Order: sequence, then structure tokens, then C-alpha cells
Amino acid sequence: MTQTHAYAAYAGDQPLAPFTFERRAPRPDDVAIEILYCGVCHSDLHFARNDWGMTTFPLVPGHEIVGRVTAVGNAVTQFKAGDLVGVGCMVDSCHHCQACEDGVEQFCLNGFTMTYGSEDRQDGTLTQGGYSDSIVVSEHFVLRMPEGLDPAAAAPILCAGITTYSPLRKHGVGAGHKIGVIGMGGLGHMGVKLAKALGAEVTVFTRSEAKVAEAKRNGADHVVVSGDPAQMEAVAETFDFMLDTVPVQHDLNPYLAALKYDGTHILVGLLDPIEPAIEGFNLVFKRRVLAGSLIGGIAETQELLDFCAEHDITCDIEMLDIHNINAAYERMEKGDVRYRFVIDMATLKADQAA
Amino acid sequence: MTQTHAYAAYAGDQPLAPFTFERRAPRPDDVAIEILYCGVCHSDLHFARNDWGMTTFPLVPGHEIVGRVTAVGNAVTQFKAGDLVGVGCMVDSCHHCQACEDGVEQFCLNGFTMTYGSEDRQDGTLTQGGYSDSIVVSEHFVLRMPEGLDPAAAAPILCAGITTYSPLRKHGVGAGHKIGVIGMGGLGHMGVKLAKALGAEVTVFTRSEAKVAEAKRNGADHVVVSGDPAQMEAVAETFDFMLDTVPVQHDLNPYLAALKYDGTHILVGLLDPIEPAIEGFNLVFKRRVLAGSLIGGIAETQELLDFCAEHDITCDIEMLDIHNINAAYERMEKGDVRYRFVIDMATLKADQAA
Ligand SMILES: [Zn+2]
Ligand SMILES: [Zn+2]
Ligand SMILES: [Zn+2]
Ligand SMILES: [Zn+2]
Repeated sequence: MTQTHAYAAYAGDQPLAPFTFERRAPRPDDVAIEILYCGVCHSDLHFARNDWGMTTFPLVPGHEIVGRVTAVGNAVTQFKAGDLVGVGCMVDSCHHCQACEDGVEQFCLNGFTMTYGSEDRQDGTLTQGGYSDSIVVSEHFVLRMPEGLDPAAAAPILCAGITTYSPLRKHGVGAGHKIGVIGMGGLGHMGVKLAKALGAEVTVFTRSEAKVAEAKRNGADHVVVSGDPAQMEAVAETFDFMLDTVPVQHDLNPYLAALKYDGTHILVGLLDPIEPAIEGFNLVFKRRVLAGSLIGGIAETQELLDFCAEHDITCDIEMLDIHNINAAYERMEKGDVRYRFVIDMATLKADQAA
Repeated sequence: MTQTHAYAAYAGDQPLAPFTFERRAPRPDDVAIEILYCGVCHSDLHFARNDWGMTTFPLVPGHEIVGRVTAVGNAVTQFKAGDLVGVGCMVDSCHHCQACEDGVEQFCLNGFTMTYGSEDRQDGTLTQGGYSDSIVVSEHFVLRMPEGLDPAAAAPILCAGITTYSPLRKHGVGAGHKIGVIGMGGLGHMGVKLAKALGAEVTVFTRSEAKVAEAKRNGADHVVVSGDPAQMEAVAETFDFMLDTVPVQHDLNPYLAALKYDGTHILVGLLDPIEPAIEGFNLVFKRRVLAGSLIGGIAETQELLDFCAEHDITCDIEMLDIHNINAAYERMEKGDVRYRFVIDMATLKADQAA
């Protein structure tokens, strides 16, 4: 057992605060990791505030984890002490269902084990995430961080990156395709970079004129201000795909109308009821498709990390001192981050040294 | 020019009544057809009543047409006088756009010409449909009716059949797949027969206990009474596909929940706003897909007719005397037809003989 220092939510209406707990000693298939960086995802905030009513407190959030291997169990074959590794949204699954066999552990028929807030499948303890100085994870769920990627800026690839990459791959987005990316937050800006790297022509849809230059700086070929009816009308029936990263309710109909026949609107962020209502004719008359997508499998995440190394893609981040995590949450709620906070875990270790 | 006897809607709030008009003389690429049978589709009723606000009166409905060739233009190569042929929902398109080139004329970027209620692309006259004793149609949009299919019972294949077959083919439905068919009307009962013939395991979802035996008689392997929460719960996450033929608003969420991860819910009838709202998580968490579909291309319709001949599939019909068309519309509105009215055009010709 290893004493682990962390920041935890103690209740939905309380700020995060220091927390100390024990990580298990590595099992034969486990990799023990010293955490260097952890991205801050919107899900962290929802879990910390118990927005989905499923949080057990205290809860240590964080599922965009990059660190260095400190020890491995005796059955581990792929990693050794000193390796730079990553951990994303999953730390276990059943390993034997159809989904697990097909490498889509996120759809494990027996439910995947979340990096935080799940019960460990073997000892029943609550999993705790990456706002901490160490973690112990079964080998299959550990990713190899490629050489040459800035490890801090690469951390959000493990959630924001794979969430946008997986549907692009699933739907075969590539050269010759026109794709719209809706929303320019953590997910959206990764979507732009990844779709560009896959060869597609990328248009960012944004509500604000102010983001036009920013979208182009991120590599967008075109920008459409979605609140301008003339601009929306001008792009009617011109897109093969929409990657919709907006996590709050919005009208999908104008975006569906911007798709060609057989076009696909991909939802990665919207979990609420879809209102205003989708017009059935927007799907039926042009054989359009509305498709959900959820993170990505482990093998696909490794593929993405290697793809990012090859194309020199990382996330635009703002480095965060863990002591400022509560202020960071407030800024995230206002959309005031370009585009991801990443906790520098050295700021946590400084407390122990003091 | 040929004087043509027909039944037409003269206004949205008036019953259909006899109407006489001229069909054009065949152009070089035209096929002139003596109509023997015409199926009665729900769209006919919507157009006749001007439910969609786009009807020009008088209007002759009917787009499930079977007849015999009486003459052909001098450029026609595929048909000759005496051939048994069919005409479905389309009688022309632009022929040169990407959709036309890809054989999906229903998505013609310049708009396909509907069998009734469209402007003819060459002379600007209003197209008139199959509740009539003859029709003249460009060769490309004429289907060959295979030997061995009862021509009256085959007529609805041209709309109800292709509407359900096209998405089954598009999404690759076949052996090893479990599909739910929602609704047991003209579309639904064809969906059951076609999905079975393609090798899938078919479950009918119906609101009424009364339809259970009927669904099984139509070939359904299983029947689920959708209003019974226990039955719906028992099939959660078990289907690869849903074929949703219900043309009125209904809650899609229970059916989405019955799909496996990566499952596809196909809409062929719902043109209204989708309410109650779809829960975003029902799509996102299991990577499910909601897909529209609209009739099918001409080549695919021919493929279907040949498939139906091979598998001995026709529609269950009730033969209709054209004089009873208004009573038939009233019965259709109450869902009181098993499963399609087909007009016997001999009942129209009898008037001329008298
Ligand atoms: Zn996340
Ligand atoms: Zn599993
Ligand atoms: Zn029809
Ligand atoms: Zn065309």
C-alpha cells in the first residue's frame, strides 16, 4: 500500500481540498505510476459537484493522466520502471464480453471501471483519479506515451483527444471530406486538429465573431458564425460530417440542414434531452444520420497517441497549480480556458516537501 | 395526346371525384402504360388533403403503379408493347448530379420529379399519378415487373416495399442480426417479410396485444407489446437494428434503449418534430445511430422486385373499387386496412364502357 496525496471533493457543494488515502500494492498485472500531469475535464467538475447524482465522496477526479512507471507486477510484460505512460477514462473492464473482445472496452457489457468513482472489480474499493501523486492501474489500461510529445500538453489526448478521434475514425473521415466542428472548447479544438491531420477540410461553427481568428489559428479552413442566418444558408447541404462537441442543449436542425444527403452528425458531448426537437424530415428526406460516440477503446487510444506524435499534435493547455483547482473550475464554467487546464503535479508534491 | 380517365382531388376538403385530362404523346425516351393496378399510399392521402401545403389541384394521386406497355418512343431500348411494368414515386430527375450518377435519384441535387404533384422537367405541366387508366413515363423510371408475382399484390412494393428494403440494404441487415420492426401497417408488414428474407431475426413491436398473432402470421419470430414495461425491459440492449415505420410522433427512447451498442434506429416514416425529446445519452453512451431513409433508387427498386420474385414476397392487399376510394381513405385514417388498398383499374374502365 502506498500513501497517496491528492485533492478530493468532499461534497457536491464544497470546494476541492487536500486528501490522503492508500493506493493498493501492485497486483501481478498492475503498473504503479508516479503522476506528473493530469488534465482537467468537464466530467471532473460534474462528478465533483454530483451533477449526475452518482458520486461517492470523497472523490478524487482526473482521467487525463500522464506519469512515470515506478514499479510493475510480476506478470506485466509491456512496461517497466521509468516508462512514460498515460491513463485515460477507464482502468478496467470484464475482458471477456463481445465489446472487450472487439477492443471497445467503453461498451463493456458488464460495465467498464471508471478511473474514478467506480468500484474496483477485485477488492470493491472506490477508484480514485489523477488529481493525486500516484496511481496503480492494470497493464491493459495503461497507454505508452510516445517520445517527442510534450507530456503535459499530451495529457488531454487521453480524454478530449480520443473522444473526438474515435468517431472520426469510426465514420472514416479523411481526405475529400468536408467536416464542420461545432464548439471550440477542449473537445472542439482537438477535433479541428485531428480532422485536419486526417486530411479533411474543416469548418468551425462558432456563436461568436470573436472566435473566428482563433479557430483559424487552430487550423480551421473556414469559420461560420452559427448565429448568422445568411452564413448558415450559404453552407446548406455542403457537409459530409458534423462533429458536435457542444455539451449543452442546442438546436441541431440548422446543422442537419448543412449536411449533404447521407451526411452524419456526430454527438460527443450532449447527454441531455435533444431540444428543440429534431425535425424528422431533416433525417428522412436526405437519409442523414445522427450518431453518438463515447471516448474510444484502449487500442484506439494508443493508435491516437502514436498518430499525435507523428503529426505533432497536442492540446493547447494552461498549466495549473493544484492549489488553484477551485478557481479553475469556476473559469471552466464560464468557458474561460484555452483549451484545457492541466495540473502540474509538482505543485502537489511541493506541499509534502514543505 | 391521350385522353386519360382518373380520380382526382379537387380541393383539400373535398372527396376525390372523376377527372379527365390529357397525357402527353410519348417522347423518344418515353414508355406509355395502360394502368392495371395502383396501390394507395398514406402520402396520397396527405397530398389529396393538402396536409403539407404544397398541393396543386386537381391532383391525381397514386405512385404504386403496375400496368402494361402500350407504346414506346423510338429511343426506348428496354421495353416494348405488352411488357408488364411498374412506376413508383419518381418519374424523372436531373440525370447528371452526383446523386443521379450514384443511382440515388431520390436525393437528386436538383430535386426529383414526383410521380404526381411535380412539374414535368420539359414542358412544365403538372405530373399526375396512378389513380388513372394510363401514364407516360421516361424509360429510366420504368421498372420491369418480374414474372410470377401477382401484379396487384406487387404494386405496393414500388413504395412501401422499397421504403423498407432500401435501409435494410444500406445498413447491411442480414443473417445474424436481430431487428425490431415498429408498427405493423403497410410499411411494417413489408419490413417484416423483407428482413426475414434477408436472413435477420425479426421482432415486431406493437402497441396492441391483438396484433401479436397477426405479426407472427406475417413471419415475425417474436412480438413485443411496446406498452408493457416488463416486455420492453426484457429486450434492453438486444437489437442490432430498429426499423421504425410509425408515421406519427412517438417516444424513441425505449426503442433506443433496446438497441445494443452500435445499434441503428432507422426512421422511414416520421417527418414531424421528434418528441418526446431523444435523450442524448441514449445515443452517446452506446454509440447508437439514428438514421433516416427515403424510398430508394431506381436500380435498387428493380433489385427489390427481382428479390421479391425470388423469395415470393408480395404485399397483403385489399382490392379496391375506385368508386370506394373516399371510404378507403377514411378506413386508412383509422388504421383499418390489412395492409394496403390496391385499386383495380378495371373498375375505372367500367365507367367508360357503360
Ligand atoms: Zn473527460
Ligand atoms: Zn467486457
Ligand atoms: Zn408512397
Ligand atoms: Zn440529379
